[in-house]
Amino acid sequence: MSYKLNYFTFKGLGEPVRFMLAYGNTEFIDNRVEWEDWPNLKPSMPLGQMPVLEADGEVFHHCIPICRYLGNKFNLAGENSLENYKIDCVAETVNEFRGKIAMWYYYDKQVKDEKYEKLINEVIPFYLEKLEQKAKENGGLLAINKITWADVYAIAVLEYCNVLMGCDLIANYPNLKKVYEKVMAAEGVKKYLATRPEDKIPSF
Amino acid sequence: MSYKLNYFTFKGLGEPVRFMLAYGNTEFIDNRVEWEDWPNLKPSMPLGQMPVLEADGEVFHHCIPICRYLGNKFNLAGENSLENYKIDCVAETVNEFRGKIAMWYYYDKQVKDEKYEKLINEVIPFYLEKLEQKAKENGGLLAINKITWADVYAIAVLEYCNVLMGCDLIANYPNLKKVYEKVMAAEGVKKYLATRPEDKIPSF
Repeated sequence: MSYKLNYFTFKGLGEPVRFMLAYGNTEFIDNRVEWEDWPNLKPSMPLGQMPVLEADGEVFHHCIPICRYLGNKFNLAGENSLENYKIDCVAETVNEFRGKIAMWYYYDKQVKDEKYEKLINEVIPFYLEKLEQKAKENGGLLAINKITWADVYAIAVLEYCNVLMGCDLIANYPNLKKVYEKVMAAEGVKKYLATRPEDKIPSF
Repeated sequence: MSYKLNYFTFKGLGEPVRFMLAYGNTEFIDNRVEWEDWPNLKPSMPLGQMPVLEADGEVFHHCIPICRYLGNKFNLAGENSLENYKIDCVAETVNEFRGKIAMWYYYDKQVKDEKYEKLINEVIPFYLEKLEQKAKENGGLLAINKITWADVYAIAVLEYCNVLMGCDLIANYPNLKKVYEKVMAAEGVKKYLATRPEDKIPSF
């Protein structure tokens, strides 16, 4: 089985897929597409966007569906549909949180300054407190009382959000820290992190 | 088993859940929250947003995870993780399409006018052609060759998008029309539509 992940040269929406593959101890081609090559490549991607994972003879797109698919493969899914709902729901919540930060990040400087206070004092703590509460209920895991793809997805997204905000967002959330440590302690993740290239963030 | 769906007095993100419950021939309390009652109710909702479904002794939030959960219940899921990926992927694509339209709809009038041409001539046809192609490949269904929750979800979202755009978006897409007809022909959906209240859209 060969795996090839196509994404840009930074964390973004590709990182959760990289983390999933790493967590599953799967060798993969980490095809980091340079920004200048993207216009030529774009039309060949199913919806003109990445991440796109080539695996199992199929071409997969959309970050969360890819992570769910890999989660099923790597025994990181729930045992029944209620557990799977809980996993999905964490992933959606984390994705919504990322969306709020990313939307802010890509505003121009003046609008960013205006919106910063609300983001840092209201929006971010709102989501992090909800997630902290879930992590507390599940003994340091986000969805249920075993590690799932939602934990792996969440930590990869949080890493990206830290880059966008320029700080460690979960520094004061002890139960989210536990999730972070569990994901980062996985053998495959440690191996991936040891050789992960630095982000090359394009200037938009 | 009692089901109560909490959502606003219009289609929006509640309609896919209403369609799912209707498709599953499930009696449910369709709690349509008036806009003026929302500020009082908001803090009691898990993430301060709706739709929220009370069912099976649990409180469910986030539209797509709810629809996936109900899809599993009503035999509208896939047989394996590849089929389920295909279903998820259609739902994500449809949701992204809705997002583009909704984002346009809520701009102020001047920006709306500026962005209308691109939306109607590029963005909307791009997505509808991709979905039409999928519906063609699957003989008038979107994800796989049996009806799934992605078909039900997609048609409910399309109905909402038609409201926002003020036209029948799939008029010229024969295979998407087939999906529409299959979903609308279901006994429970017909029954729901026969008594569905008119939308009351608040002026934001």
